[in-house]
Amino acid sequence: MDLNTPALKRLLDTWLDEDIGRGDLTKEALQNFHGQAHWVAKQKGVFCGGALVEKLFQRLNESVQINLLVEDGESFDSNQKLLTLHGPAATLVAGERTALNIAMHLSGIATETAKLVSQLKGTGVQLADTRKTTPGLRIVEKYAVRCGGGINHRLGLDDAAMLKENHLAWSDDMNTTFQSVRESAPWPTRIIIEAETPEQAEEAVKAGADGILLDELSPQVLHKLIPHLRDLASSRATYKGSKQIVIEASGVNPVELKEYADTGVDFISSSAPITKSSWIDISMRFEQKTNVP
Amino acid sequence: MDLNTPALKRLLDTWLDEDIGRGDLTKEALQNFHGQAHWVAKQKGVFCGGALVEKLFQRLNESVQINLLVEDGESFDSNQKLLTLHGPAATLVAGERTALNIAMHLSGIATETAKLVSQLKGTGVQLADTRKTTPGLRIVEKYAVRCGGGINHRLGLDDAAMLKENHLAWSDDMNTTFQSVRESAPWPTRIIIEAETPEQAEEAVKAGADGILLDELSPQVLHKLIPHLRDLASSRATYKGSKQIVIEASGVNPVELKEYADTGVDFISSSAPITKSSWIDISMRFEQKTNVP
Amino acid sequence: MDLNTPALKRLLDTWLDEDIGRGDLTKEALQNFHGQAHWVAKQKGVFCGGALVEKLFQRLNESVQINLLVEDGESFDSNQKLLTLHGPAATLVAGERTALNIAMHLSGIATETAKLVSQLKGTGVQLADTRKTTPGLRIVEKYAVRCGGGINHRLGLDDAAMLKENHLAWSDDMNTTFQSVRESAPWPTRIIIEAETPEQAEEAVKAGADGILLDELSPQVLHKLIPHLRDLASSRATYKGSKQIVIEASGVNPVELKEYADTGVDFISSSAPITKSSWIDISMRFEQKTNVP
Amino acid sequence: MDLNTPALKRLLDTWLDEDIGRGDLTKEALQNFHGQAHWVAKQKGVFCGGALVEKLFQRLNESVQINLLVEDGESFDSNQKLLTLHGPAATLVAGERTALNIAMHLSGIATETAKLVSQLKGTGVQLADTRKTTPGLRIVEKYAVRCGGGINHRLGLDDAAMLKENHLAWSDDMNTTFQSVRESAPWPTRIIIEAETPEQAEEAVKAGADGILLDELSPQVLHKLIPHLRDLASSRATYKGSKQIVIEASGVNPVELKEYADTGVDFISSSAPITKSSWIDISMRFEQKTNVP
Amino acid sequence: MDLNTPALKRLLDTWLDEDIGRGDLTKEALQNFHGQAHWVAKQKGVFCGGALVEKLFQRLNESVQINLLVEDGESFDSNQKLLTLHGPAATLVAGERTALNIAMHLSGIATETAKLVSQLKGTGVQLADTRKTTPGLRIVEKYAVRCGGGINHRLGLDDAAMLKENHLAWSDDMNTTFQSVRESAPWPTRIIIEAETPEQAEEAVKAGADGILLDELSPQVLHKLIPHLRDLASSRATYKGSKQIVIEASGVNPVELKEYADTGVDFISSSAPITKSSWIDISMRFEQKTNVP
Amino acid sequence: MDLNTPALKRLLDTWLDEDIGRGDLTKEALQNFHGQAHWVAKQKGVFCGGALVEKLFQRLNESVQINLLVEDGESFDSNQKLLTLHGPAATLVAGERTALNIAMHLSGIATETAKLVSQLKGTGVQLADTRKTTPGLRIVEKYAVRCGGGINHRLGLDDAAMLKENHLAWSDDMNTTFQSVRESAPWPTRIIIEAETPEQAEEAVKAGADGILLDELSPQVLHKLIPHLRDLASSRATYKGSKQIVIEASGVNPVELKEYADTGVDFISSSAPITKSSWIDISMRFEQKTNVP
Repeated sequence: MDLNTPALKRLLDTWLDEDIGRGDLTKEALQNFHGQAHWVAKQKGVFCGGALVEKLFQRLNESVQINLLVEDGESFDSNQKLLTLHGPAATLVAGERTALNIAMHLSGIATETAKLVSQLKGTGVQLADTRKTTPGLRIVEKYAVRCGGGINHRLGLDDAAMLKENHLAWSDDMNTTFQSVRESAPWPTRIIIEAETPEQAEEAVKAGADGILLDELSPQVLHKLIPHLRDLASSRATYKGSKQIVIEASGVNPVELKEYADTGVDFISSSAPITKSSWIDISMRFEQKTNVP
Repeated sequence: MDLNTPALKRLLDTWLDEDIGRGDLTKEALQNFHGQAHWVAKQKGVFCGGALVEKLFQRLNESVQINLLVEDGESFDSNQKLLTLHGPAATLVAGERTALNIAMHLSGIATETAKLVSQLKGTGVQLADTRKTTPGLRIVEKYAVRCGGGINHRLGLDDAAMLKENHLAWSDDMNTTFQSVRESAPWPTRIIIEAETPEQAEEAVKAGADGILLDELSPQVLHKLIPHLRDLASSRATYKGSKQIVIEASGVNPVELKEYADTGVDFISSSAPITKSSWIDISMRFEQKTNVP
Repeated sequence: MDLNTPALKRLLDTWLDEDIGRGDLTKEALQNFHGQAHWVAKQKGVFCGGALVEKLFQRLNESVQINLLVEDGESFDSNQKLLTLHGPAATLVAGERTALNIAMHLSGIATETAKLVSQLKGTGVQLADTRKTTPGLRIVEKYAVRCGGGINHRLGLDDAAMLKENHLAWSDDMNTTFQSVRESAPWPTRIIIEAETPEQAEEAVKAGADGILLDELSPQVLHKLIPHLRDLASSRATYKGSKQIVIEASGVNPVELKEYADTGVDFISSSAPITKSSWIDISMRFEQKTNVP
Repeated sequence: MDLNTPALKRLLDTWLDEDIGRGDLTKEALQNFHGQAHWVAKQKGVFCGGALVEKLFQRLNESVQINLLVEDGESFDSNQKLLTLHGPAATLVAGERTALNIAMHLSGIATETAKLVSQLKGTGVQLADTRKTTPGLRIVEKYAVRCGGGINHRLGLDDAAMLKENHLAWSDDMNTTFQSVRESAPWPTRIIIEAETPEQAEEAVKAGADGILLDELSPQVLHKLIPHLRDLASSRATYKGSKQIVIEASGVNPVELKEYADTGVDFISSSAPITKSSWIDISMRFEQKTNVP
Repeated sequence: MDLNTPALKRLLDTWLDEDIGRGDLTKEALQNFHGQAHWVAKQKGVFCGGALVEKLFQRLNESVQINLLVEDGESFDSNQKLLTLHGPAATLVAGERTALNIAMHLSGIATETAKLVSQLKGTGVQLADTRKTTPGLRIVEKYAVRCGGGINHRLGLDDAAMLKENHLAWSDDMNTTFQSVRESAPWPTRIIIEAETPEQAEEAVKAGADGILLDELSPQVLHKLIPHLRDLASSRATYKGSKQIVIEASGVNPVELKEYADTGVDFISSSAPITKSSWIDISMRFEQKTNVP
Repeated sequence: MDLNTPALKRLLDTWLDEDIGRGDLTKEALQNFHGQAHWVAKQKGVFCGGALVEKLFQRLNESVQINLLVEDGESFDSNQKLLTLHGPAATLVAGERTALNIAMHLSGIATETAKLVSQLKGTGVQLADTRKTTPGLRIVEKYAVRCGGGINHRLGLDDAAMLKENHLAWSDDMNTTFQSVRESAPWPTRIIIEAETPEQAEEAVKAGADGILLDELSPQVLHKLIPHLRDLASSRATYKGSKQIVIEASGVNPVELKEYADTGVDFISSSAPITKSSWIDISMRFEQKTNVP
């Protein structure tokens, strides 16, 4: 995740403004001294958000310093210290809730991702996220998925194209639709087609798709279908497409991940790390007042 | 929720920009025709986000029309139609994911809230949210809690003051800290003190707190403590404080909600509706092309 | 006032952009040297804006340093030095007018407030502001009122609710209107009802109002009415309301402040500190060039 | 004033957001019906802000309609109806305070301006404003000055250049400073020099100034000085400067306006219309509910 | 180009604000009537910007109507009418310069692109743009390239990755660098490597690059190199890479386009359509006043 | 150009966001080390953009340091080093393209301006720009024109007024139109009238114009017309106008610049430096890794 972009700074500002509003009413109680505090986990999990939290506090006051004891992507135990903070007490309190909220949310996603990824261990098949992300948080939630061991699917409607059920339902034929997107898209754009039947998948390969999303097909069907699709693809060729095809399965129940991994898919995409995760509980504890530098 | 504020419009714009980025690459496939579609629930729950979704689509194109079949706060069954949409196909597709994401997320919160609220039925005790909300989404998540039957606690650091563990850990004495906040805050501000022991709670009432948050105390302790605190309060008086006190319990395990409700608390606050909820699954299905008006 | 929020920084930027526009045309005359200057009052008053002005100059150039000789809320005499500045000459000139404008305006408000507050000395009754504030400047104008010894009423439409003449004129009955607001508002929200007759005030107390604004009633009426309202309130009880009521008078002529204070009101609200104040005259005088550090 | 610029729309939005914040808490009481209301003056004055107020309400809801009974710049009496409004009741209430605040403030400025301008009647000398304007409101306050019969001086640091006391105090010599600004400024830029003595004024004319601001010089001095400066100017010539000079007086006590007008100045500039004005009292009164269209 | 995104609306607003500033000073001369006008080309070329210009005027006033006589991407002759406009005269004048500026600039790019593309006619090789675009205008300039018959390369640093001379100069070895990008990028990301020698190109293919940019190599070298690279690629395989490779040439002199096209490259990228184009001259001519509707 | 305004910082941010989008995908390859690089010109020209580029990189990371070897406005040869940079490698790469794009574009304008200005050498007549500037870049492009030796015309519609062909075509008579603008404009506003015939020019002088733009009239016509217009002007007088008039020629073919300069015009305005310029080619070359400080 790129922490230095102007866009990220504006995003952090909107979070702080949301909570602080017209000003922290308790600020008066905390004027004029600095303090030291730490974060401690109240359950185990995979951490995500440390570097982001540092930037967040520094948007309020550049003098805040954070020492990360656990890096993003690392596991931690219950009661483990995650980081220490030092800075003006009023700033630490004003930013506390927002900072914890994002780190607890992202660590929840990283932890949930890691759980699913562990089931794919040894299969060589990866777990990818989807565009089912909380509005406003896509860039950080997708980062959390990577912290948990997953990979990212496309970031938005503009960095890869996917012709989904709804595009196809409204188009006269898949091939024409595909070509109109191919022609107007930048050349590096991968175009993926979502298929809900083997016939659609075949049609998609023939149209020239770079990737096929096989949605809610059984492992049995996939075992037979996937080699067939790869064969079909190997006889295609345009410079923007490829003789190969990337095959992704979706609509997979978490308990079946291993079974799907064995069908020959390249990866499995799932919104569960984001839509089914709970926040990891983390507390901020103040240690001591210190003198203003 | 106030759907007509400039601030909400900007929030909707940031969500759309996040997904659409430099432009929907599939737009070329959907030029020049209008379409009709509907949303259908894939599991049961409590709906939240209908009116918001209408505003969202209209930020892309004012001609989009939505007919809500289920109102915010109403329950729906699996496979129930929630709303119908009509508008330019390219707009419906460009806004689809963002619209579903927010409605699925908020309906998840409303549904989770309703589950907890149902356990308090008949007790007269309400369930309130907290400031543990997803950064950027507080206003809509708090609305979702209301749709699920809960009530809202303060919206930010500026509409009510709470002296929490960390304020008190750093202050020399609770009373001085309390008075400094009282003096600088607008007169309608309620000041709440978080207490982790009966002694702290007593001290808080004496200091003049409008509300006491009793955190992680057992029902047994509360049974005895609460009447005592109310007695103490009845002998206080300043115009900005009160002879009464609002008593809230937190840190309550969902299965104990009923037991806590019987202790005499005014309400129970919980972050669970937001931090522990999962998204409700909803799909958008296209019905037919229609002529451009 | 919270000087470190992102929102305040953006506000300062809009002020600077407003004056500087596409660039200060005289900048060329002041390149490449630093200077020292001071502010001097041209009439006596109560100062407000010092810390804000420091932040303002630093938005243009972080190297500007300000030494406050008079703190916000302190009185000063005519010809008294208020602060000294040091920094790049071009920055001091570019920010001069905007900085003086806000400090002269706010000091005018603080001074006017102090004049009114002095009339309430010894009564225990406070002077509160209203929502009649200059668009865009509420947060700083309300701070100026505090600098002058007043207290703040609600900050906006969202941190306390007031049912005013216009709400009541359009509602079928006061009680229903009140309850609909009570139900949807966050629990810490105080709800105030504006009453223009003793009957309305009585109805308001019965409905459950936390505060009553008695508008343009005579001191004679208030003397009798206020104890009656307090009695009525003491027999009420819901956890979000109170057995007590906060009573505020408005529409009070400045010369009658003392007389109203003696009626038993909790405080008197007035827009005069903002709507009737004049700017305090302050000049910026350059002292000397200094070497660039 | 240009009411259709994107910049003005954003300005109106910041005003509305400031008051409405996270949402009007009384909105629930006013859902689902439309209403009609009017504004009535509670004192006489010169109106300013009608067209602006219409745009303001329409930022909240495009269906609001306003019928202006008094145009900007027209005088009104106490108790005169100024405008009528029709629209959703919740919108009229949410925008009421902000709309009245700006119109009361601007009408105060227009009224104060008209008072001063009336003293110059028949002299052919005009009254101009200055850059002493409330931060954030320059464009609307300068419009109010025009509504009161005054003229505008420069709008900011970038549409005309003025070498003031502070520039000259820090420059080695006036002529060099003047030429450096002349060279870098766009050709249509008028460059004005502030003079506090006749000698400075003379030097300024020789340097090539397009305008001279004679600050705090007595009428007696001006009577002799002004013809001399015009003579001096008539012997100059560069294409960007002129053989003529515009002469402005400032630091003029309102009671001496007429006396200064007779000295031969082209106009008199004064910050008093803005820094010394009080708000004009205006009320919004609801008339009736109407059916939603 | 996606004309309905919030981001595009904000971009149009910044353009209008830039020119209009604090308000069009000539607006007073054009109040209260509507007018009709048209655009006429003063030289031949390929048109670009019509639909954009319509949105631009409508940001100022929604009642402006534009009738496009030439579509984006179509050729026009000198003196040909391009479009007609109807709306408030003050709006047409306020938006005129900005509208013409963008259309003249974009039509210049479309025209220059078409000139280069015509040299590739019949070769099957396409012309792609680069990231050398005018800051702030990438999305519209890339659209202009498509209007001229070119294709788009990546839109930014985030929708495809290119390891360029500078990345490689600082990395220890190309393969490690490539893999670190592959691992962190979303799966649909194509990764391209810039090669300045045949050896680098070979190394790039082996590392797994999806595309090779061959910079400033002669046609003679390419003739031999390209088949070799394709052979190498056909023996690779990972699901995110491909057995095929897209080969692009850059640093090509316009007169050599045809010669390079014959070397077997997939396309040729060039910044010339943007960096070497001149604006196409277009005038706006007023036709008649019309009544305000 | 004013590099410290909040507005400029926001402009730089929009440029960076445009290229970086959701994050530089190659960032992973460049983590954790600093580097040194330089810019080298690949053709000769006049430099513009050095100071701007420093600010640009510092928006990404404040630790970036730039040492300018060629100042803005200075000429450079092919292969000359222009500046050196030092900072985090990931930042240098992320900002490289945007920084080069703006400097190459602006240097192209400065170079083209210098070419035209050189033809006016010794004539005392200056070359001015116009409002034909690339949307979003006016302030920096006009700065580039000054770097090339030109002067700036008005910056927008709000710092000087020009009645152009279209205003006059729609107005009933020139004099009335002129006076309506004069009355509403700030007093320092220069009002210019565009004339396409000698008769219009005469009418414009009589109306009181401060400047006359003589568009597409031949040098022969100008020779006779200009002295006549100056005579006419010398008999006028109002304080906001002048007895003198500034005369500008436009529509001048570059090869005729000298011939027009001899006609007695004050300056010649031309959009060619911006609309006809090509980018100057500049490369960024990495020199070495350095340790993180």
